[in-house]
Amino acid sequence: MHDHATAFAPGSIGNVGPGLDILGLAIAGAGDTVEIARMDGTAMVVDDAGHPDLPTDPTANTAAIAAAAVRSAVGSSIGMRLRITKGLPLSGGQGGSAASAVAGAVAANALLDAGLDSAALLACALEGEAAVAGRHLDNLAPSLLGGLVLVRSVSPVDVVRLPLPPLQVILVHPDQRLRTRDARAALPASVPREVALQQAANIAAMVAGACLGDLELLSRGIDDRIAEPVRASLLPGFAAARRAALDAGALGSSISGAGPTAFALARLDDDASRIASAMVAAYLEAGLMAHATITGIDDEGARRR
Amino acid sequence: MHDHATAFAPGSIGNVGPGLDILGLAIAGAGDTVEIARMDGTAMVVDDAGHPDLPTDPTANTAAIAAAAVRSAVGSSIGMRLRITKGLPLSGGQGGSAASAVAGAVAANALLDAGLDSAALLACALEGEAAVAGRHLDNLAPSLLGGLVLVRSVSPVDVVRLPLPPLQVILVHPDQRLRTRDARAALPASVPREVALQQAANIAAMVAGACLGDLELLSRGIDDRIAEPVRASLLPGFAAARRAALDAGALGSSISGAGPTAFALARLDDDASRIASAMVAAYLEAGLMAHATITGIDDEGARRR
Repeated sequence: MHDHATAFAPGSIGNVGPGLDILGLAIAGAGDTVEIARMDGTAMVVDDAGHPDLPTDPTANTAAIAAAAVRSAVGSSIGMRLRITKGLPLSGGQGGSAASAVAGAVAANALLDAGLDSAALLACALEGEAAVAGRHLDNLAPSLLGGLVLVRSVSPVDVVRLPLPPLQVILVHPDQRLRTRDARAALPASVPREVALQQAANIAAMVAGACLGDLELLSRGIDDRIAEPVRASLLPGFAAARRAALDAGALGSSISGAGPTAFALARLDDDASRIASAMVAAYLEAGLMAHATITGIDDEGARRR
Repeated sequence: MHDHATAFAPGSIGNVGPGLDILGLAIAGAGDTVEIARMDGTAMVVDDAGHPDLPTDPTANTAAIAAAAVRSAVGSSIGMRLRITKGLPLSGGQGGSAASAVAGAVAANALLDAGLDSAALLACALEGEAAVAGRHLDNLAPSLLGGLVLVRSVSPVDVVRLPLPPLQVILVHPDQRLRTRDARAALPASVPREVALQQAANIAAMVAGACLGDLELLSRGIDDRIAEPVRASLLPGFAAARRAALDAGALGSSISGAGPTAFALARLDDDASRIASAMVAAYLEAGLMAHATITGIDDEGARRR
């Protein structure tokens, strides 16, 4: 048991193209940090939620819910005082709520010397994520484990870190809003069998491409037939930005999570600036300001600070 | 150009669990052999279809259709005389029609020194397969390439041979009939989104398990939520046989192609006889005679003889 513990968790791309709810990719750079101090009593207090729009009520704060779940998983009832530093935006599809939940779980695990394994930590972080974004692991798992992660099952937790050659990641943030709730409501309740099978084949191609280091195969798999078609209609400019990314040489491009952030993947020797510029220009042409970030994959996942 | 050419192509398991239309596995042992002799004129003649129930009409025979497609692909019009030796049963879900088509295409390619690549050969074999079993590559591709094959796309042909550790394959043939047409008609036209995503996650787990040599992951992925539930109701005894295979230690078990053959996969050090006996006993208990074959994976695929 320690007096303090601090953990950082990176942002992530959910879905990664066709992998709706089942593929996620950890992104290097920005992330959320949660610092937990032990305090007398049994209360859970959020001193700083990291942003004025985020709740300090510990039963509504993703990091605090995840930390409380860890505490409860090990039968502890010590008091905890949290300070959250948000490096990720509150919305936009960069896995901010998941990063806070993961950092909360990892920090609590460290504070308590609890030694929970990845599956147990994910189950705890899922309680936090579920409070704001639904019961999905496709942002939580990469934020915890780093890299590209396959979510085979949420209950029981069954996630697999996949090998993946180094890639450049381009994130483009258009000046538009799409609530996760609306993006999810747009999803079809059922899909034609042929679409389901093509989607599965594309996900399988991405997974095989990643495992075998075959980037052309990975590229051919980045083709979402279920979520992207309906969400693209809610995201003016996206279809043109995606087209521009591919024309500029990207391996693939799609919506990050529920959007509105768009992403593109590129080889290390591709001209990522050109891809980013082309995507931003496509949004501008659609009447939307946008800015781009060029980064890479976070291979490490959540870590103590 | 040669006077004679002979090719052998192995049988295969289509679907391989959740991989409806997109995963196939080549099976060691039985296969079909096609011998083609050059003859004067431009006719295509089937001297021996290999079984009295198979057509000698070259426009209805899968091997002859595939051979004619190769001939046409290279702009030739030489006469061909075919003799087919059926090592595989005519029906039952062991990829017999696909093996004949592949062997016909490979033999014609050799006879003509045509040098067609795998994708071109598959496109030719597909013409034969489509005449009797639909436009699917999940038997053709493993029969041609060997091993476990992912079919990412039929048109254009995009198939990927996946690495796979050596496994034992148990095939169990119950004394029942299920026409491929009826088995396909039972498939739902659409599937709930959650089922589609779980199916995709399971296929992805199989692919990752194969590529990474993680047999436990492969095992967890062998769980078909789309075809098996509806086909199992048409195949008395199957559900019990599958359960018996898993209880006896199999990595996984499902219907081979459209059935009625059932299959189980097992590690090299598993007791395959015990798995086979348990499956046969389950069919007997359901009132059906059944017999089993214990074999392995055909890693080589179609080859000249």
